[in-house]
Amino acid sequence: MDLKGYHMWLQYQPIKDKQYKKAIAPFLKNIRSVENSPVLSNAMEELAMGIKGMFNIEVNYNLSTEEGIVIGTTDILEKELGRDVKSSLHEESKEAFEIIKDEKKLFIIGNSVQGALYGAHHFLRSLQLKKTIDQLEIISSPKNDFRMLNQWDNFDGTVERGYSGNSIFFKNDQIVQNKSRIKDYARFLSSVGINAISINNVNVWEKETFLITKKHLAEVKKIAAIFRGYGIKLYLSINFASPMAIDQLASADPLDENVKKWWKDKAKEIYQEIPDFGGFVVKADSEHRPGPFFYNRNHADGANMLAEAVADFGGKIIWRCFVYNCLQDWRDRSTDRARAAYDHFKPLDGDFLDNVILQIKNGPMDFQVREPVSPLIGAMQSTNQLIEFQVAQEYTGQQKDLCYLIPQWKEVLSFDTYHKGEGSTIEEVVAGNIHPYKYSGIVAVSNIGDDENWTGNTLAQANLYGYGRLIWNPSLTSEQIAEEWIIQTFGEEKIVRETILDMLLKSWPTYEKYTAPLGVGWMINPGHHYGPNIDGYEYAAWGTYHFADRDGIGVDRTEKTGTGYAAQYQIENQRFFEDLDTCPENLLLFFHHLPYKYTLKSGKSIIQHIYDTHFEGYREVEELIELWNKVEAYVEETTFNNVADRLSMQLANAKEWRDQINTYFYRKSGIKDEKGRTIY
Amino acid sequence: MDLKGYHMWLQYQPIKDKQYKKAIAPFLKNIRSVENSPVLSNAMEELAMGIKGMFNIEVNYNLSTEEGIVIGTTDILEKELGRDVKSSLHEESKEAFEIIKDEKKLFIIGNSVQGALYGAHHFLRSLQLKKTIDQLEIISSPKNDFRMLNQWDNFDGTVERGYSGNSIFFKNDQIVQNKSRIKDYARFLSSVGINAISINNVNVWEKETFLITKKHLAEVKKIAAIFRGYGIKLYLSINFASPMAIDQLASADPLDENVKKWWKDKAKEIYQEIPDFGGFVVKADSEHRPGPFFYNRNHADGANMLAEAVADFGGKIIWRCFVYNCLQDWRDRSTDRARAAYDHFKPLDGDFLDNVILQIKNGPMDFQVREPVSPLIGAMQSTNQLIEFQVAQEYTGQQKDLCYLIPQWKEVLSFDTYHKGEGSTIEEVVAGNIHPYKYSGIVAVSNIGDDENWTGNTLAQANLYGYGRLIWNPSLTSEQIAEEWIIQTFGEEKIVRETILDMLLKSWPTYEKYTAPLGVGWMINPGHHYGPNIDGYEYAAWGTYHFADRDGIGVDRTEKTGTGYAAQYQIENQRFFEDLDTCPENLLLFFHHLPYKYTLKSGKSIIQHIYDTHFEGYREVEELIELWNKVEAYVEETTFNNVADRLSMQLANAKEWRDQINTYFYRKSGIKDEKGRTIY
Repeated sequence: MDLKGYHMWLQYQPIKDKQYKKAIAPFLKNIRSVENSPVLSNAMEELAMGIKGMFNIEVNYNLSTEEGIVIGTTDILEKELGRDVKSSLHEESKEAFEIIKDEKKLFIIGNSVQGALYGAHHFLRSLQLKKTIDQLEIISSPKNDFRMLNQWDNFDGTVERGYSGNSIFFKNDQIVQNKSRIKDYARFLSSVGINAISINNVNVWEKETFLITKKHLAEVKKIAAIFRGYGIKLYLSINFASPMAIDQLASADPLDENVKKWWKDKAKEIYQEIPDFGGFVVKADSEHRPGPFFYNRNHADGANMLAEAVADFGGKIIWRCFVYNCLQDWRDRSTDRARAAYDHFKPLDGDFLDNVILQIKNGPMDFQVREPVSPLIGAMQSTNQLIEFQVAQEYTGQQKDLCYLIPQWKEVLSFDTYHKGEGSTIEEVVAGNIHPYKYSGIVAVSNIGDDENWTGNTLAQANLYGYGRLIWNPSLTSEQIAEEWIIQTFGEEKIVRETILDMLLKSWPTYEKYTAPLGVGWMINPGHHYGPNIDGYEYAAWGTYHFADRDGIGVDRTEKTGTGYAAQYQIENQRFFEDLDTCPENLLLFFHHLPYKYTLKSGKSIIQHIYDTHFEGYREVEELIELWNKVEAYVEETTFNNVADRLSMQLANAKEWRDQINTYFYRKSGIKDEKGRTIY
Repeated sequence: MDLKGYHMWLQYQPIKDKQYKKAIAPFLKNIRSVENSPVLSNAMEELAMGIKGMFNIEVNYNLSTEEGIVIGTTDILEKELGRDVKSSLHEESKEAFEIIKDEKKLFIIGNSVQGALYGAHHFLRSLQLKKTIDQLEIISSPKNDFRMLNQWDNFDGTVERGYSGNSIFFKNDQIVQNKSRIKDYARFLSSVGINAISINNVNVWEKETFLITKKHLAEVKKIAAIFRGYGIKLYLSINFASPMAIDQLASADPLDENVKKWWKDKAKEIYQEIPDFGGFVVKADSEHRPGPFFYNRNHADGANMLAEAVADFGGKIIWRCFVYNCLQDWRDRSTDRARAAYDHFKPLDGDFLDNVILQIKNGPMDFQVREPVSPLIGAMQSTNQLIEFQVAQEYTGQQKDLCYLIPQWKEVLSFDTYHKGEGSTIEEVVAGNIHPYKYSGIVAVSNIGDDENWTGNTLAQANLYGYGRLIWNPSLTSEQIAEEWIIQTFGEEKIVRETILDMLLKSWPTYEKYTAPLGVGWMINPGHHYGPNIDGYEYAAWGTYHFADRDGIGVDRTEKTGTGYAAQYQIENQRFFEDLDTCPENLLLFFHHLPYKYTLKSGKSIIQHIYDTHFEGYREVEELIELWNKVEAYVEETTFNNVADRLSMQLANAKEWRDQINTYFYRKSGIKDEKGRTIY
């Protein structure tokens, strides 16, 4: 693929600054590794590719030279170097790396081969960002041990909630033969520190169930080998009813000895092929998927049975907490879907084996543009936890509309749970610093497909890049991450950097403005989840309501008068959300049912706020288009048109949102826009 | 197929009344025809089958006997009989028949072989209904020349708006090899006088386009032969862009000489295979189908070009008037979809060739449970017209909910257009008695599929039966038709007759009560059109809005203050609909936007009427269930369960409708139910 978009942020664009080139070039002529390892080979291949691209230097792989880059792991390099690198790295994560230099040499040292690979990527990124020779020295260690992606790829080649073409893993009910895109994907992921992936949809349908059988394991093994070379562990999503579907067992009861034995045998079979197989991702008892409830067992029974099967091999069970009643009667206001994950899992704290990790969506509902943080995260002190983000823009514009999500995730990570007093942020919880989790970290739904530019909208690449960078180092700011990504992707031209940075940072607030107001969510088209449909979920079975009537809108989730959801938080947060004076206004209608005439801190009524933000949101999309037009001369034509086309779709979408939301609430409230703008 | 449901109303159930059997039996021992014809052979086969079933008599085909049934056509039988049957039949339609008897013989005489076949069916029906020997004598002539069905069957085997399984004509992109169901379908249709059918969907997709090519014509010919044997002419729906799709012509412009020639050649090719081929059904320039508009031609240009191609062979072009802007902006209140057919076609009156027939849906929108009659019907005095009904219950419960549609069609037929003064009813218009149409009549979308009982819900068979019976003789009452159908289908047990009659007659009013109120329509789930979705079409591109706000609801279609649609009627009807005092209340919101507090003639406000009818509608479905349970002992178990299952689905559907409609309007109006019933 020669299109720039295909190479995402690994463009390795020629560096034009002669002085910089002159200063760095002497270090780039030779690369050597003191060890043999597929991961280090890939690291050296990447270094050679990057150096060729940026400096037009063909590197030598010269083992004896006294000038150049030396790459390897701490233990072996220490001996080789005859100097002490131990002090600075050995206390760090196994995946940490250090870059140090002497007059003629640069050492890229990892606590493991994976660490060294991350070091190589960091080094290349630093060159593209034109860090000075002194700035290259660094020690870096990932904040989170689990840095994972879930592909929602189906065996027929479709991608659930995919907005970038079809699967790069599956086609026509087979694993793809040509795996070159998988290798490139692994390169991109390793460059931002991703170390685990599950390649099939968490909804495991009939054919996907057989991924863990002889029929497909030989091909799965090949994919595992590709990812292994980039420090990424392979996981598979499994069907909890596999023993029945694959081998016609009478049951999938997790306490049934035959079922237990089946899974033990199955684990053995998989680990014989893939000794470092990560384990299973499980969506059970959720949205009609089978699970332990069917046998009157609980989630711990289900997860532990699987955990025992993989324990001897070092495997993990990643058990999703997205469990709720998806056949709710909309008439029933006593059930609150937001409560479901906490109600289901909190009572089981301590019951899970230590190679089980719960995977919890960032919010209590489902990846809305605005939700509070899930109260379950950090609420289980004896149960491993992962937080789940969604890089795929399911509810946030589907990679047509621009929505840079790093600010959203940063807000989530900075939320203070108070589980061990002030400072118990989500960031520290999932890093394992609040409770002594054996395993924890962050996972997200990927946003890629087989579109030439991987992500549909080229600017959506920033979310994948940023996801990896953020979870390695959550202290990076949204701006830093965006700037890194822009320079690597589009070059260092000032107008390009400033303009695209401006667009990215504005995009989430803009999207929020023209869609569902004040945190209420769900006013979206059912099924495909793009575009407005204010009552689309109002009479549905999914537990997703806004309760708008002629007087007001919102869901009362207080303990005092509502569903009691707010009481799932620590008392500090409960008070914070329940009190109208402190409840963040962008979540006001998530926690409270309020009249349209209720006055916000801005002095505006809710209804006027709705009108104003929707007119503003549309206007801001027009501004995004104006901004993008400014960079036309600096951006490859294909990419320019790709984004321009998407922005025009976004404008049409914002118009529908603006007019439908405003019309709906005007018709319902009868309250006119103070500014007399057109409402239909 | 041995299931009773399969045989629909041609059960030929044993007659138990010994006296009746004794009186009739002597006439039933022999059948003879004085002519050879496939149609008469089928008539005799049917007579033999029916007589065997009802009387357990194996008939003889005895040409010389002096006792029995003689069947034939007027001209030939006259000679044979040596008596004058001329006087009574020759003035009637070519399809008319007469049954006369002398002491030992019954004569079934048609003005054509088709007429004789209808006579045979009438005779068998009369026996099943236990008409006395004297009552058997009759002269019957169809009121309408065109009595047609449209199948909306796709080549892949699906049926658009089909609720009874898959196609009996197509499967896996082929015409079915085993055509036994097609033959049985032809039997059923001929038994109620249907004389024309189009077998493929009016939306002609890629593969269906090739039905008129060598690839498929040999198989089409076989189907035509089956139908020919039952007096039914075969039509095909065609793709207006066929010349481009099939033979890569550069255009489908109806005034292009190459295009004209292509269609002439094509017609010749088809008529070589099927000399009595009916002609083409065309949906053009409608819902994204190609048509003359693309070439800046009008519908007359398009239809006439095709009409010229088939004229020499006696072919007809049936041109659908379901043409409207399906990409309307919901913000635009100046466009009214209800106006579209009249606005498009009325100005073209006189421009169409005389083998073109316009096919006009009964209402101006699309087969809603309640619509006014289309103002286009009868408004074109020099253009042939067919009215189109929908036997398939697209918007009327999809053959889950019970909805006996004959009363709806009778209301339509009895509507007085005033086009030639009082008495210019739709019935007389489409019979060709108001304007001198060369061809006219009635067409409907069929409701059958490959379900064992043909129609999904066994009780939906009554709509297919009734459609045929009604359009042959519109003076039959809904009750008469229902009773005929019930006795033939379920037998003559009093409780069965009375109970099912009661159910059928109540069903349309009940369905109307729990769905969209007062004629406003469209509060249904978009796409599949089952179940409530009050705002489902409110912000859509289909031109289907109710404009409900906190104060009122409805579409102002008056000339004075609204879209002017009402002025498309003759002045008598315009005044009738525009005046709130005379406008039928069941169409009130179709023509007027009114406050919820507006008082109806009942003394109730609109909002209270909505609440009351929706509670009543649900209650009436419970009553339908109670009624059905009364006949359990008398109805075959499979059929009983079939209907019972559907009724329970209907109850769930009625509950959703009741609660969503009531809740929606309560939340919007804020007006409480006077009776304090539960609204959510």
